[in-house]
Amino acid sequence: MARTARGRRPGAPDTRAAVLAAARSSFAAQGYRGTTIRAVASAAGVDPALVHHYFGTKDDLFLAAMELPVDPRAVVAHVVDGPRDEVAERFLGAFLSVWDDPAVQPALLTVARRILEPGGDRLLSEGFLPVVVQPIGAMLGLDQSEHRMTLVASQVMGLILMRYVLRVEPLASLPHDDVIATYAPTLQRYLTGDLP
Amino acid sequence: MARTARGRRPGAPDTRAAVLAAARSSFAAQGYRGTTIRAVASAAGVDPALVHHYFGTKDDLFLAAMELPVDPRAVVAHVVDGPRDEVAERFLGAFLSVWDDPAVQPALLTVARRILEPGGDRLLSEGFLPVVVQPIGAMLGLDQSEHRMTLVASQVMGLILMRYVLRVEPLASLPHDDVIATYAPTLQRYLTGDLP
Repeated sequence: MARTARGRRPGAPDTRAAVLAAARSSFAAQGYRGTTIRAVASAAGVDPALVHHYFGTKDDLFLAAMELPVDPRAVVAHVVDGPRDEVAERFLGAFLSVWDDPAVQPALLTVARRILEPGGDRLLSEGFLPVVVQPIGAMLGLDQSEHRMTLVASQVMGLILMRYVLRVEPLASLPHDDVIATYAPTLQRYLTGDLP
Repeated sequence: MARTARGRRPGAPDTRAAVLAAARSSFAAQGYRGTTIRAVASAAGVDPALVHHYFGTKDDLFLAAMELPVDPRAVVAHVVDGPRDEVAERFLGAFLSVWDDPAVQPALLTVARRILEPGGDRLLSEGFLPVVVQPIGAMLGLDQSEHRMTLVASQVMGLILMRYVLRVEPLASLPHDDVIATYAPTLQRYLTGDLP
């Protein structure tokens, strides 16, 4: 009754914000696997069906809670289309198009820093890797797909750390095309080359 | 007088501990460049000459304060000797010999986590990179040395993050020789290959 008296209704901005806040708390405290739509709904004081209605699946809720300025799944979707031996170039082009965009980078940095904070590691190992990274390998139909995408992540996370979080020169100022020329052979080998 | 009454003397274990605690506080708060032997000595209540006598240079004090179980400069020294086209293999062998040693790994993990904590980034960008990583490139006499070692660091930091900090499988359990076979071509190209 108090809610109605204060004019709240399902789907109002403050309800969405309450769900996202509850989701962020749960992902941080319980990890991705330990978080359920039901528990998030309960913590936000709404019906689970409402959470599904507004945010979709748990994957969608995770990405919404991370407050990413872009849906990484949309960015990587077209990376999969095209010549197999240029997939690393397309991946790096898509990666840089969001990370080097000054309108988008601050929000991505916030997410990266959250992952690097104590306890935030589960956001990567239980969140981004299974939700965003591993599906790329599956879409590409790669053998040893999980292994390959883990290697890709090991280079991309290091690149994010050095170029964007720590801003270590000369990597921080390296032009877009040079970043691609530098890292594409590494990522192409991890994706499609011979590996032990 | 109180110190004498409590039996402290220069070089006693508690004095060394006080200097190391003051050094850790200063490196964390002021960064590597902002830390001076004089300020650390003052905070620990000892003479700067004593800090030099027990810990050597500021680089030595930094490594002692990090409580590394090995001196990384000694580990990398013999990486430089040998065929140029196998330097990445030797580097990875030395890297794994310390990181995969169960007696040493916990202390290295503590340092890695400290670097990933808020503010800890300066320990990497102002500490490890100039003290440990960049000198390797100089010892090897590489052209574009700073650029090359920054690329190496971008892959090695990602490897540490995925294999040891997050323990993402299958990379976390990948045998020693497979890690070398996987990453040696990447690091060899960053060290001596054609780059933009």
